[in-house]
Amino acid sequence: MLQRTYDDQVCAIARALEIVGERWTLLVVRDALLGLRRFDELQASLGVARNILTARLTRLVEEGVLERVEYQQHPPRSEYRLTAKGRELAVPVVALMQWGDKHAPDPAGPPRLSRHRGCGGTLRVRLVCAKCGEKVPVSGLEVLPGPGLSRPA
Amino acid sequence: MLQRTYDDQVCAIARALEIVGERWTLLVVRDALLGLRRFDELQASLGVARNILTARLTRLVEEGVLERVEYQQHPPRSEYRLTAKGRELAVPVVALMQWGDKHAPDPAGPPRLSRHRGCGGTLRVRLVCAKCGEKVPVSGLEVLPGPGLSRPA
Repeated sequence: MLQRTYDDQVCAIARALEIVGERWTLLVVRDALLGLRRFDELQASLGVARNILTARLTRLVEEGVLERVEYQQHPPRSEYRLTAKGRELAVPVVALMQWGDKHAPDPAGPPRLSRHRGCGGTLRVRLVCAKCGEKVPVSGLEVLPGPGLSRPA
Repeated sequence: MLQRTYDDQVCAIARALEIVGERWTLLVVRDALLGLRRFDELQASLGVARNILTARLTRLVEEGVLERVEYQQHPPRSEYRLTAKGRELAVPVVALMQWGDKHAPDPAGPPRLSRHRGCGGTLRVRLVCAKCGEKVPVSGLEVLPGPGLSRPA
C-alpha cells in the first residue's frame, strides 16, 4: 500500500497520490469512468489478480472514491459506483490520456476519444485562468507557495 | 519497475502510467516543474532513498521527460532539466493537485497555488471543447472507442 509513503510531503499532489497512486488504481478509476461496475467486468478488463483488485476496490471505497452498492439481495450482488469525488478524477485521468496520446502514441491512433456530450467536439484538458478566462499554455503557469506550505519545498 | 506492467492495456492512460506511474515519479516531475534540477536538491525535497531517486531519474531521462545536462566540467556536475514532453506533464500534475486540494484538503489551506503568469489569476485545469470553446463539467464528458482500440475495454 502507498498509504503513508508520502507522509513528509506537504503537497496536494502527494495527497492525491496517497489515494490513487497505487499500481492499477487509476486504471480501476478509468474503467469506472467508462461505466464498468461489477467486480468480474473490472477483473476481465484489467487482467489483474483478484486479490489485488479486491485491495484496490476496498481502498477506493474507504477513501470515498467509489461506493459499494448492493443491487440484488438473493443471492447478494454488489457493484461499485463512482461518487462525486471519484467522478472528478476524470480531469486528471483525461489529462494523462491526452499526454499519453501525444507523447507515447499508439501507432494505430488513440484508443479512446474524449467528446463533448453537448456538441460532439473533442474535449481537451486545458489550463484556464479563473480571472481573465484565457486558455493558458504550460509556459504561462507559475506555482507559488500557498498558506498550507509550512516549510520550503 | 512498472515497465511492462500494463502491457495488455490498449490505453493512453496506461502508456502514460508506464512512464510516470512508478512510486515517486510524479513527485520528481513536480519538483522539476518547481525548478529543482540537482540531485541533492531533489533528494532533500523528496526524502527518498538515493538509489530509488537515481532509478527514477534514469528512467525519466530514457523516456525523454528529463534531460541530463553537464553544467560544469571540473569537477563534472550534471543537472536534470525538463524537456518539452516533460513540461507538458504540468497539466496532469496540476489536475491531481486541484483534485487533492478539493477532496483531500490540507487543514492549513493549499500548500501551493497555481497562477497565470499573465494576469495573476488562479489557473485551473478544465475540460474545454475544441469545437465550441465551452468549459465543460465532468458530466459533459463522453469517452468513445477510438481507432487504436482493437478490442473492447
